[in-house]
Amino acid sequence: MLAKSRHLFDDATQVTAGGSRWQGRTSPDYWAFVGPFGGITAATILRALARHPKRAGEVLSLTVNYCAPIAEGDFDLDLRLVKANRSTQHWCVELSQGGAEPATLATAVFAERRPSWSQQLLRMPEVKPLEELKPYPDVAASWVRQYDFRFIDGFVDLRGGARPQPASAFSKLWIGDRAPRKIDALSLMAMSDAFFARIFHARGELVPIGTVSLITYFHADTEDLASEDITRLLGVADAKIFHKSYGDQSGKLWSPSGRLLATTTQITYFKA
Amino acid sequence: MLAKSRHLFDDATQVTAGGSRWQGRTSPDYWAFVGPFGGITAATILRALARHPKRAGEVLSLTVNYCAPIAEGDFDLDLRLVKANRSTQHWCVELSQGGAEPATLATAVFAERRPSWSQQLLRMPEVKPLEELKPYPDVAASWVRQYDFRFIDGFVDLRGGARPQPASAFSKLWIGDRAPRKIDALSLMAMSDAFFARIFHARGELVPIGTVSLITYFHADTEDLASEDITRLLGVADAKIFHKSYGDQSGKLWSPSGRLLATTTQITYFKA
Repeated sequence: MLAKSRHLFDDATQVTAGGSRWQGRTSPDYWAFVGPFGGITAATILRALARHPKRAGEVLSLTVNYCAPIAEGDFDLDLRLVKANRSTQHWCVELSQGGAEPATLATAVFAERRPSWSQQLLRMPEVKPLEELKPYPDVAASWVRQYDFRFIDGFVDLRGGARPQPASAFSKLWIGDRAPRKIDALSLMAMSDAFFARIFHARGELVPIGTVSLITYFHADTEDLASEDITRLLGVADAKIFHKSYGDQSGKLWSPSGRLLATTTQITYFKA
Repeated sequence: MLAKSRHLFDDATQVTAGGSRWQGRTSPDYWAFVGPFGGITAATILRALARHPKRAGEVLSLTVNYCAPIAEGDFDLDLRLVKANRSTQHWCVELSQGGAEPATLATAVFAERRPSWSQQLLRMPEVKPLEELKPYPDVAASWVRQYDFRFIDGFVDLRGGARPQPASAFSKLWIGDRAPRKIDALSLMAMSDAFFARIFHARGELVPIGTVSLITYFHADTEDLASEDITRLLGVADAKIFHKSYGDQSGKLWSPSGRLLATTTQITYFKA
């Protein structure tokens, strides 16, 4: 049994090792509409993989398919190393509760990050300093309260009612844990899903939504993140299309120094 | 046994049904450096899923993790319906050869595409008509010869030698099957991987590469694609970063009428 750690995020993503079957538990601190915040589920899966004794290398990508709502309480994580090569590992993870069919299905790639030609083609966009920006107002979902969102562009007042015309789905904001916590791969994973649903921005109102599939690519390894030593990210998110009940989202997460740490895309169900 | 169809693409992605275990075979017509073109493998997996008697709904997303090279010859596809809800299905697919560990691991989401609020926020970029554009020169990999690439922007002459400075990784081009074939979800899936590796563009030279993980989101269903009735797509691809042996790619596939049909991202190993 792991010791209870101090940060809520570490509590919420805690896992207990168990051979190929690990255990976790949902946290009321990171609750969304009908289940846990998707980002916390993804981070919990990543934590289990990162701690697995057979794991080698750095996380390169994690795809999470949200198959069904997760009920409050305990869950099992079935971790399977599908294929290992000299420098990469391919994992498949199923999250289930009480022996039922999986509620979450994930695949992950871990890899040795060997030195190579290195080039960041995309520059961080212009930002405003945090002090000039207002914190996002409190909202009902508990997970939102665990983050400090400071919008630079694309602030949306969800209490304002639907917009007459579709608006931009673009947002640019600083994201940090409400109680500061050093950015690691786990928080990168969770923050990949911490953008509000793009349809809220496009329509200016809350509608029922649910992430169906999320993928995050990691462009920084443990050493890179250690050298950044930061507690906030610049997040940029946008959408391209909403059609027949599904919409896309793409996001980028930058360190304050301008390093691109992760990119993420997802497809989201909506009812509107 | 399925009848041999006329188009090479349909031959190459042919599958034989077999309960949960299906069979396929690599095609010399879609060969890349050390194995089949990744797009043809992805399309073959999608074909098997689409034909599965338990499949319901339209493909919404397909993630393909390339774990190991596929050898020339037969392969097995193990198709597993992990979770089905009223309106969505989550599948896991493993491709293996001769009973060995999986060479490819994929997850897919199928869903009912119900009518909804619909909004395409991103417009197709400006294009040039096909007649004004030269076909891409013949290259060694057989899969490239199965496509007609007409570059509008970001043409790269891979015989020219490395560039002194890193160049843009952006490309905009028309893509069609060399022998015209109506665009369906299978060809969308294959063409998602038909962009040349972004590092070839950034460095102006061929280096060893391999797609590690690819995801495609489908923004058009069978009815939408039928109404388009097209044999070519506008493809746009770019990269944001190359770092420690891995680089990203994001792509968009448009119908000539300006409809966004699919978006795709991948992470790719490179040696440079």
